[in-house]
Amino acid sequence: MRRNTENFRLACGNLPSGRMNGLTDVPGVLVGHCTLRDGDINTGVTAILPHGGNLFRRKVVAASHVINGFGKTVGLVQIDELGAIETPILLTNTLSVAACSAALIRDALARNPDIGRTTSTVNAVVGECNDGPLNDIQAMAVTEDHARSALAVAHGGPVEQGSIGAGTGMTCFGFKGGIGSASKRLEIAGEDFHLGALVLTNFGNAGDLILPDGRRPLPPDPEVKTTEKGSVIVVLATDVPLEHRQLSRVARRGGAGLARLGSFWGHGSGDITIAFSTANPVDHDEDRDIVSRRVLNESRIDLLFRAAAEATQEAVLNSMLAADRFVGRGGTLRTSLADWLNGEAGRAS
Amino acid sequence: MRRNTENFRLACGNLPSGRMNGLTDVPGVLVGHCTLRDGDINTGVTAILPHGGNLFRRKVVAASHVINGFGKTVGLVQIDELGAIETPILLTNTLSVAACSAALIRDALARNPDIGRTTSTVNAVVGECNDGPLNDIQAMAVTEDHARSALAVAHGGPVEQGSIGAGTGMTCFGFKGGIGSASKRLEIAGEDFHLGALVLTNFGNAGDLILPDGRRPLPPDPEVKTTEKGSVIVVLATDVPLEHRQLSRVARRGGAGLARLGSFWGHGSGDITIAFSTANPVDHDEDRDIVSRRVLNESRIDLLFRAAAEATQEAVLNSMLAADRFVGRGGTLRTSLADWLNGEAGRAS
Amino acid sequence: MRRNTENFRLACGNLPSGRMNGLTDVPGVLVGHCTLRDGDINTGVTAILPHGGNLFRRKVVAASHVINGFGKTVGLVQIDELGAIETPILLTNTLSVAACSAALIRDALARNPDIGRTTSTVNAVVGECNDGPLNDIQAMAVTEDHARSALAVAHGGPVEQGSIGAGTGMTCFGFKGGIGSASKRLEIAGEDFHLGALVLTNFGNAGDLILPDGRRPLPPDPEVKTTEKGSVIVVLATDVPLEHRQLSRVARRGGAGLARLGSFWGHGSGDITIAFSTANPVDHDEDRDIVSRRVLNESRIDLLFRAAAEATQEAVLNSMLAADRFVGRGGTLRTSLADWLNGEAGRAS
Amino acid sequence: MRRNTENFRLACGNLPSGRMNGLTDVPGVLVGHCTLRDGDINTGVTAILPHGGNLFRRKVVAASHVINGFGKTVGLVQIDELGAIETPILLTNTLSVAACSAALIRDALARNPDIGRTTSTVNAVVGECNDGPLNDIQAMAVTEDHARSALAVAHGGPVEQGSIGAGTGMTCFGFKGGIGSASKRLEIAGEDFHLGALVLTNFGNAGDLILPDGRRPLPPDPEVKTTEKGSVIVVLATDVPLEHRQLSRVARRGGAGLARLGSFWGHGSGDITIAFSTANPVDHDEDRDIVSRRVLNESRIDLLFRAAAEATQEAVLNSMLAADRFVGRGGTLRTSLADWLNGEAGRAS
Repeated sequence: MRRNTENFRLACGNLPSGRMNGLTDVPGVLVGHCTLRDGDINTGVTAILPHGGNLFRRKVVAASHVINGFGKTVGLVQIDELGAIETPILLTNTLSVAACSAALIRDALARNPDIGRTTSTVNAVVGECNDGPLNDIQAMAVTEDHARSALAVAHGGPVEQGSIGAGTGMTCFGFKGGIGSASKRLEIAGEDFHLGALVLTNFGNAGDLILPDGRRPLPPDPEVKTTEKGSVIVVLATDVPLEHRQLSRVARRGGAGLARLGSFWGHGSGDITIAFSTANPVDHDEDRDIVSRRVLNESRIDLLFRAAAEATQEAVLNSMLAADRFVGRGGTLRTSLADWLNGEAGRAS
Repeated sequence: MRRNTENFRLACGNLPSGRMNGLTDVPGVLVGHCTLRDGDINTGVTAILPHGGNLFRRKVVAASHVINGFGKTVGLVQIDELGAIETPILLTNTLSVAACSAALIRDALARNPDIGRTTSTVNAVVGECNDGPLNDIQAMAVTEDHARSALAVAHGGPVEQGSIGAGTGMTCFGFKGGIGSASKRLEIAGEDFHLGALVLTNFGNAGDLILPDGRRPLPPDPEVKTTEKGSVIVVLATDVPLEHRQLSRVARRGGAGLARLGSFWGHGSGDITIAFSTANPVDHDEDRDIVSRRVLNESRIDLLFRAAAEATQEAVLNSMLAADRFVGRGGTLRTSLADWLNGEAGRAS
Repeated sequence: MRRNTENFRLACGNLPSGRMNGLTDVPGVLVGHCTLRDGDINTGVTAILPHGGNLFRRKVVAASHVINGFGKTVGLVQIDELGAIETPILLTNTLSVAACSAALIRDALARNPDIGRTTSTVNAVVGECNDGPLNDIQAMAVTEDHARSALAVAHGGPVEQGSIGAGTGMTCFGFKGGIGSASKRLEIAGEDFHLGALVLTNFGNAGDLILPDGRRPLPPDPEVKTTEKGSVIVVLATDVPLEHRQLSRVARRGGAGLARLGSFWGHGSGDITIAFSTANPVDHDEDRDIVSRRVLNESRIDLLFRAAAEATQEAVLNSMLAADRFVGRGGTLRTSLADWLNGEAGRAS
Repeated sequence: MRRNTENFRLACGNLPSGRMNGLTDVPGVLVGHCTLRDGDINTGVTAILPHGGNLFRRKVVAASHVINGFGKTVGLVQIDELGAIETPILLTNTLSVAACSAALIRDALARNPDIGRTTSTVNAVVGECNDGPLNDIQAMAVTEDHARSALAVAHGGPVEQGSIGAGTGMTCFGFKGGIGSASKRLEIAGEDFHLGALVLTNFGNAGDLILPDGRRPLPPDPEVKTTEKGSVIVVLATDVPLEHRQLSRVARRGGAGLARLGSFWGHGSGDITIAFSTANPVDHDEDRDIVSRRVLNESRIDLLFRAAAEATQEAVLNSMLAADRFVGRGGTLRTSLADWLNGEAGRAS
């Protein structure tokens, strides 16, 4: 399900990429997938773990940004009040948010028996897109077990991309979409840092896509040239020490990455960014009244803004480059952007 | 489970009340409960239907306001983007949001087979408070069937209040809390309108409560004099024609009603208002490009603001007055504000 | 113009007050007034300096909250983006914001010749209320010199209150309003901290005021029993180390303080809170890429919330208690809440 | 100061343009400039009048969006609370906002002697960018008279663009920026409507600009290849009937237009959109309690989103194409994008 994206890499911007060009270039971040493909069922779950430990006990600083709110992502209210994430982030299809949310809660209860007893409850974070055109979304096929499975296999190696996990049945600019990732390496204070993006892409009208070199790929199949009822979830991770307000500013730049691809953040699309920093974890049981934190000098933040825009743009392209031609529910076809590029290459030679 | 609140009515403000002094004074609005009481299980579901028809097909104009965001309510992102609600509103305990959300989705799919096929998906709205001290919340005892049951029994008569439905295991200012409701009758343009409030009360520190006459009731049991990890959900309904922005302004005034009771909207509390107007329903299948709507003259909106603050304040008091002394999980006791008032009355005579 | 508020002190809440019970209990904070009283001109300027140094060079962490946005305060956009204040805060009447803003800019240019040349421009912060009923506001009598005068006399002693500075022509709940202040002493990590409030009060309908003991003072003069087109500006200062997000949460609690007094944040009122912390000043010329900051443990923040609500409530009462009976433009009379309390005392004896 | 932009028109998107391809294609909208060029003074004022009548008496529905809030625009708090604009919109340099604001207030007082007497005060709207590199901004050369002059000459003909009015001293992507405009014609319900954009461009790093065909123009002068402390103000006007929430959604899409040009909304830039609709004017003296309004069917709003993104993108390009090579303060040079395109054309032939 995953192809080598290197053949047709469409690099965005001029910041250097991380070693794996993915979210997992941020040290400690883990990604796992559970894919469901069975007849008309083409869907799944993708898990993002800011770190491999107990996230409820050791939260990460976070922020979200709603680019366009026609979406059903859960957990954002508390992220923005408290500036922290305390579970893994799960991505899935729109009607399976509840199952994934329940899985995160049960997982947190199992690890933290004091939840809802002697300490607070837990805020599950689940993002979604509507894979209805390629998946029998009404079947609500994703179960809590699938969510647990995605969590269980999460790892820190290269991010598997394309029609996998939550991305299995997604469509992007009329081509096959799915999971994509990219990262940028940043040098700050003489140290190496990274900002990574992982996207679940199900947005964009056929014909609106613009490649970094100005080309405008159009999928051959006329059936997808209609209005998308899509969505895109952008997850940004960094090890640069940013406070909530700074992460909120960085999160907004995910929208710039999407716009550069030709999107105008369509009405029917739930376009949401969730950003977190692995620096300065927040101890749930902190007993000091006042704590000390490292924070980026605000005047250096343009570097993060540029990285967020470029990594998001490139991650979206990677989601399409890594996805093969796909036949979904009722025989609905999605062509591959990689095939379009191959064709272009053929015509050029 | 419901007592007559009239004996100790603590009226707030000087606007006249609606006939039933409840959310259902707004024509068409229905309320139903499903209550779970079995050993350590003391919880439930409360359903609010803006109207009895197909809400996905005929949405209501809506807005939300986050007073304090330490909460897990779902559906707010889309309410605020599109200014509409398209399912009933369910209230439950914090860890049962997913079950209620799934029930709303399945209900919408059953009524609207085009969801996720030829039209958009559906945005479920579920509010919650943490009833952990009185309920074995870790049991996640609420099922989709319980949610369906609350929906099925919803009616337009007087709102049943106190330890019922989602309010079964709630605590308010150290007394027994739960479901409360109140309404205000408004005369606009020579017509009668109403604004109603329904609250799920689980907030406030013992000792902070202030009655409208300045008295400060303190529950006798020392164990509840600690910091609450509570929450309160305020649902406001009106038949006054308000656009989203106006409803958003009205929603904010729920917070004023809470503050008048002595709350400062505590850190650990998810204090959220959802407001809707039954005027100007939005047709999902509208085929005209431009539609006409009635809207309140903005300079008359103070009447709605006052009603929202007063109805919220009074609904909270009603949630406590209607709740009897309660023994919950592990024998934990909550005394009744009505009993405190009885005692005061006894001491006075 | 200032009377001893101690005779009728209406203490709010049970947190201890600071030594001077005013904004200047926060170490380093300075307050100054310039008062204009000449015939129909009854207005002025109040200056709040987070510290006495060069604020552009050494900014303070800050946040704002719009309780109700029918107001013309300037500077909030940048405060909330960057989380900092870089000029003194001036308060004045609605139509004199421009003059005060220009004064702040010229003052910053004089101290920092690199502004707009080799470094960024400067964000002036000016809050306002409409003193039209008692002041010939159309005269736009406040000049840049008046603003400079308020800045020049700012000091760290007890805050002068009542009909002084920007408060000269203000009306509150039908009584004479103006400038009020209060503070709460907080013990955190074994150290003494303070949270202070300074308010410019020009809000509230006659008859809506509720005193902490439940009494409801009504001014005797029928002419003020109409809808107010008021406003209130709440400035909160603290030396507790709070980041922007935390200050934003604290700022919201100013609204709770107002609501406890009987306000529902009326339509025609610009009700705005600006909050800053003197801890962790931000060096404009910081050359380190990453800096270290102290931050309050979030689970302790209820103490700040309570202090913000109580200090705001008490500061509003102080603004009325400190204001004598006042005859303004065209002979318009405002009675004093202190006189009302005296009358009550007389009736009681 | 204005050149024919048609020679090098860089059309964006495929929606048809309005007849004049400018903000004034929206019927009733007027634009005027006052330009100051005298030695090191290179600045001015641009006035946008939603209609030529008394705006305080007949307000227009409006919304704003802060793309990046490092800016000093005034008036946004009230726009977003009340959803209306009640003065012309003035654009100028950062340190002249106060003068323009005062001019708008005096103009409103002259036309409406009841302001601040028997009715509310007035909310002036002024946007700004920092023209410091080309203008002696510290001189604060813009006076109230200059603002009045821009208002006085406003007309409904083609918008004069480039280095004129507020745009006189602006820089965009290292080239000369200034005032630009564009419009899109929309067919809705069988009628012709328009959405127009007017931009004041002073943003973007040299080297980041991307033309619609993928070319990346780089200005020849190395001195501007540094970080910009810029800003951009985007004003969107339409005659499509939109309520505040819808306008708020449309306003956000201004940011998409900027991102398509290569901007990532830099830290030091105040990037702000103000959007208004000339349909459904709001009568200040409305005496009916409930009014009727036409509103666009939400499911048609993608047309407006696309138009907003494309018109903003094209207006920015027009601001550069219309601006000649410019020598500003201290001899600082800005080259013209038109000259760069001419050079390209020369090299190509």
